[in-house]
Amino acid sequence: MRLAELSEHSGVPTATIKYYLRERLLPPGRRISATQAEYGEEHLRRLRLVRALIQVGRMPVTTAREVLAAVEDESLDQHMRLGAATWSLPQGPEPDEDDPAAETARATVAELLRQLGWTFEEGGEPSPARQTLVASVAALERLGYRCDTAHLEPYARAAAEIAAHDLDLVEEYAQPAEQVEAAVALTVLYEPVLLSLRRMAHAEESARRFAR
Amino acid sequence: MRLAELSEHSGVPTATIKYYLRERLLPPGRRISATQAEYGEEHLRRLRLVRALIQVGRMPVTTAREVLAAVEDESLDQHMRLGAATWSLPQGPEPDEDDPAAETARATVAELLRQLGWTFEEGGEPSPARQTLVASVAALERLGYRCDTAHLEPYARAAAEIAAHDLDLVEEYAQPAEQVEAAVALTVLYEPVLLSLRRMAHAEESARRFAR
Repeated sequence: MRLAELSEHSGVPTATIKYYLRERLLPPGRRISATQAEYGEEHLRRLRLVRALIQVGRMPVTTAREVLAAVEDESLDQHMRLGAATWSLPQGPEPDEDDPAAETARATVAELLRQLGWTFEEGGEPSPARQTLVASVAALERLGYRCDTAHLEPYARAAAEIAAHDLDLVEEYAQPAEQVEAAVALTVLYEPVLLSLRRMAHAEESARRFAR
Repeated sequence: MRLAELSEHSGVPTATIKYYLRERLLPPGRRISATQAEYGEEHLRRLRLVRALIQVGRMPVTTAREVLAAVEDESLDQHMRLGAATWSLPQGPEPDEDDPAAETARATVAELLRQLGWTFEEGGEPSPARQTLVASVAALERLGYRCDTAHLEPYARAAAEIAAHDLDLVEEYAQPAEQVEAAVALTVLYEPVLLSLRRMAHAEESARRFAR
């Protein structure tokens, strides 16, 4: 399809598509004349992902470009590729090395992973998500809210159920490349879904417990 | 206790405490001389909450002040007070009125609430969290990722389990005022915990399904 059709099918204005092409967020189309190029299904899919990262995930263009580089890395096996792509997504704050609460939090998180039997990091670097978790637990502790493995476990169990569901959605896509794109897009797009549902569930639970 | 002790007990520098006092994020202490004031346990607790909102929740001071106004509103019953305080927290994007995907998303969310039997909004305004959910579902649909009630239900069930756990933590506090403060702080502080655990659970689940 031509640029105008790509715009029509995706709902993304042509000027925005041209910007994404210039910023190398979208691979170039196949040249068919000096002024025209032909785009395919893979451009439509990539455009969805770019919109997810930039519009919903509010990522800067440089960050989105790094995520896409990980998505495109075909030298890795499927697990590593999924991992590389989602590890490259922006994360929360890192723990402060000088903070004694971070030391305690690091031990709490290590114990939690042992209890859950999560071994995905074994023999490798701690994941960016784990660093964010350590920083978040340290913040809770520093503010005087106890946060030990007993507090974290229900969240981890809920997260595991959600992750199984997320990967079921990812596996509905046939091709490995599509699966990686979907994994990244759904990771980003379902974060506000999950947080807003939690707040609604708070309101519902609070009504049941406290409403006159 | 004096300002210096408040700083020592909270770990917050005195200059920062003075800034919070000036910005009315912290109520003034009880004057005991022209230059000194006495602070109590309620100042220590409030300081924790302010730190949670500003440092972890990254809220602007004006937003934090609105949240605290809701926390302090003793004219409401406990359910309404919890609701007012957490509804005042910053939310994600609102749905775009002109977007046909928002129309579909609004119907999907209404159907989801009916299926779940969540009635907390009945006879009132749609909550800000519901607006964020509608906007997020609309974004998914617009980007070509189907998101119907069957997709949302597992997230909602997980959110309900988490919310029950959150309110158990809140109910560990004896006083209604403490409960409202804890509800707000824990809502904000556990958001990065939940998102980082979800990403870790993805990595674990992906290793189990795809690793060679």
